[in-house]
Amino acid sequence: MNESASRLAGPVRVVGAGLLGASVGLGLRARGIDVLLADASPAHLRLAADYGAGRPDDGGAEPALIVVAVPPDLVSRVVADELAAHPAAVVTDVASVKGAPLAELQETGLDLSRYVGSHPLAGRERGGPSAARADLFIGRPWVVSARPENPRSAVNLVEALILDLGATPIEMAAADHDAAVALVSHAPQIVSSLMAKRLADSTDAALGLAGQGVRDVTRIAASEPELWVQILGANAPAIVQILRAYRDDLDHLLTALDDVDAAGSRRAIAEEIAGGNVGVGRLPGKHGQDKRFRSLIVMVDDRPGELARLLAELGELDVNLEDLRLEHSPGAPFGLAEIAVLPEVWQRTVTDLTDRGWRLAG
Amino acid sequence: MNESASRLAGPVRVVGAGLLGASVGLGLRARGIDVLLADASPAHLRLAADYGAGRPDDGGAEPALIVVAVPPDLVSRVVADELAAHPAAVVTDVASVKGAPLAELQETGLDLSRYVGSHPLAGRERGGPSAARADLFIGRPWVVSARPENPRSAVNLVEALILDLGATPIEMAAADHDAAVALVSHAPQIVSSLMAKRLADSTDAALGLAGQGVRDVTRIAASEPELWVQILGANAPAIVQILRAYRDDLDHLLTALDDVDAAGSRRAIAEEIAGGNVGVGRLPGKHGQDKRFRSLIVMVDDRPGELARLLAELGELDVNLEDLRLEHSPGAPFGLAEIAVLPEVWQRTVTDLTDRGWRLAG
Repeated sequence: MNESASRLAGPVRVVGAGLLGASVGLGLRARGIDVLLADASPAHLRLAADYGAGRPDDGGAEPALIVVAVPPDLVSRVVADELAAHPAAVVTDVASVKGAPLAELQETGLDLSRYVGSHPLAGRERGGPSAARADLFIGRPWVVSARPENPRSAVNLVEALILDLGATPIEMAAADHDAAVALVSHAPQIVSSLMAKRLADSTDAALGLAGQGVRDVTRIAASEPELWVQILGANAPAIVQILRAYRDDLDHLLTALDDVDAAGSRRAIAEEIAGGNVGVGRLPGKHGQDKRFRSLIVMVDDRPGELARLLAELGELDVNLEDLRLEHSPGAPFGLAEIAVLPEVWQRTVTDLTDRGWRLAG
Repeated sequence: MNESASRLAGPVRVVGAGLLGASVGLGLRARGIDVLLADASPAHLRLAADYGAGRPDDGGAEPALIVVAVPPDLVSRVVADELAAHPAAVVTDVASVKGAPLAELQETGLDLSRYVGSHPLAGRERGGPSAARADLFIGRPWVVSARPENPRSAVNLVEALILDLGATPIEMAAADHDAAVALVSHAPQIVSSLMAKRLADSTDAALGLAGQGVRDVTRIAASEPELWVQILGANAPAIVQILRAYRDDLDHLLTALDDVDAAGSRRAIAEEIAGGNVGVGRLPGKHGQDKRFRSLIVMVDDRPGELARLLAELGELDVNLEDLRLEHSPGAPFGLAEIAVLPEVWQRTVTDLTDRGWRLAG
C-alpha cells in the first residue's frame, strides 16, 4: 500500500477481468485505489476479485476513470455503453488496435471527448484473470491515442493511470499506432506463424537439426488463433500494406533462387540479406542485438548451485553482468550460459574464468 | 591433454583455417592429436597456428584424415585436390550444403569412396580463426552423409573425429540433409531477413514499440550476406520448394485480410495461425517451447551481485533452475530474470520468493 504516491483519486472502474483488466486492478489495488470490477462472466469476475484485483461494482460509487479491457471486437460497443452510463467519467480502452474501434465509435455520433484510447505493450503467454500480475506493466511503453477534441484533463487522467501502473505513456495518433504495431507486432506474428506451419509436416530427423535460429523465428507462432484473428482483422489494411512489400521481396528472391547463375541473381540475394542487416540494426538495443556488449558462453554443469557459483565468481572478478541467457543442450549434462559483458572486460573475463577452470564454448 | 581418450591416431590435416577449421584444430590439439594446417591465406594460417589450432603443414607427415573447411563455393575443388594429393587419406568437408559439392565431385569422374561429406550444426556470429573455440562442437549434432560406396572404415574415421570433438554424429543422406537444413535453417534465415528489411524505413517512434516478438523473429537477420549468398545458392532447389509453399500460404492470408468480413476469411486467418501452433509444437523442447517447465519473472535490481543473490536464494529454497534468461528493460533500473522451474515447484517458488521480498513481474 502506497496511497500517498498515487496520482489517481479512486474509484476506477475496470470492465473486463481478463489478463489485462485484472492486472490493472491488481496494480491499482497495490497503490490503495478503490477498483470496481465488471465482467460479462460472473466466474471471471469472482476469480479476479478473489485474486485481489478489486471488488464487484455494485453501482454505489461513481468512477472518475473507466478502463475497458474486453476482447477487441467488443471494444467500441462497451466504450459507447460506458460513456452513456457514466456521463462524468473519462473512458479508456486497452485494445491492441486503435483505429477500428475509434471509427466504429465515430459512426455512432456520440460525443467522444471523454474517450481516450490507449494500448499497453505488455502481455503474457497465458491469459485470464489467474495470469494477472500487479507488475505486468512496469517498464513497458503504453500508447495514448489522444485526439484534439480530448480536454487535456482527460488525457492527464489516463496518463496518471499509466504512471501509477509503472508504465511509460507515449502519445501517438491512432493511425500511427496501428501502422507501428502492424510492423513490429502483427506482420512478425504472421511471418513467424507461416514459417512454423512449414515445420508441421517434416520428419523428426529434420527437426532434430533445428538450432536457435529457427526456434527464435518461430517462438511467437505458439500464439492463440482466436485472439489473433480479432487483432489481425481489426488492423488488416496496415498489415496488408507491409505484407505486400514483403511478398514482393520474397518473389524477387524466389526469382533469383530459381536461376542462381543468371546475371544479377547473386547480387539480388545479397541485397535482400543486407537489407535485413539494416532493418535489424535499427531496433533499439536489447538482447541479441545489443552492440554495446560482447558475449561469451560458459558451460555450466547441470547441478543445483553451479550457475550461482559462476555468478558469484564473476562478482569476485568484479565483472558486471549486462545480460545472461541459459540454455540446456538436449541430452547434454550441462547448460550453456551466454553472458554479455562490456567489451573492455571481455578478454579479462575469458582469461580469468578459464584460469578458474570454467569451460567456455563457442 | 587427454591422449588416451582420443579415438583418432594423428595426424589430421585441416584445410581452411577459418572459424570451423581452426575450431577443429583447437579441439583435436586439446586431445593431443597432431594437426597439420593449410590455408590459402598465409595470415589466416599464421593466426590459427598462433592460437594453437595446429602447425603449418610442411608435407613431412602423411595424414590419415583430412578436414576441408573452406567457403562453400570452393569445397568440391579442394576436396578433389586433396583426394588426388593424399591417395590413402579419408577426406571430409564441413560445408552446410551436401548435395551440390557431391554432384560437382561426381562430374569429375574421380573415385569418391574415400570422400565422406559432413556438416556440424555449430557456428558463431563472428567468423575467422580468432573466433575459433576448442569447445565449438560440444553437444551439437554433426551430420555424416555416408554413401554406399564408402567403406565402413572411412565413415568410422569421420565419426571418430566427430566424437573426439564432443559432437553427436547423425548419419543422413545428402539430399535428406539439404532438405532438412533448407527447412530449419535456410528458409528461416530468408523469412527473418525479409521481415527485418521492412523495419529499415520505419520511424524511431514505431520501432520504440518493438517487443521481444519482433526481436526474436529478426535476430538472425544480422547474418553476413556474402556467406548466405553461397549457402542459399548451393541449396536453392530445396529452399525454393519450401518458400513456394510459404508464399502460397501468405497469398491465402493476404486474400483473407483484403476482405476480412467475407465468408471464410476469419476461418482462413485462424487456420494459418493454428497451423503455426502445430509446427512450432513439433520442435524438440528447448527454451521458450519447453512445456516441461513453467516460468516466472523476477525483477532484479541492476546492481552487481543481485542476480547471484537470487540464484543463491533459489538454492536455499531447494528450487532447481531449469532455464534462465535475463533482460534489461530499456531505461529501467532493473532487469527481468525469466526463470523456468518444474511445474510442481512453481507455486511454492512464487510464494517463497515473494515472502523474501523479491518482486515478480508479468
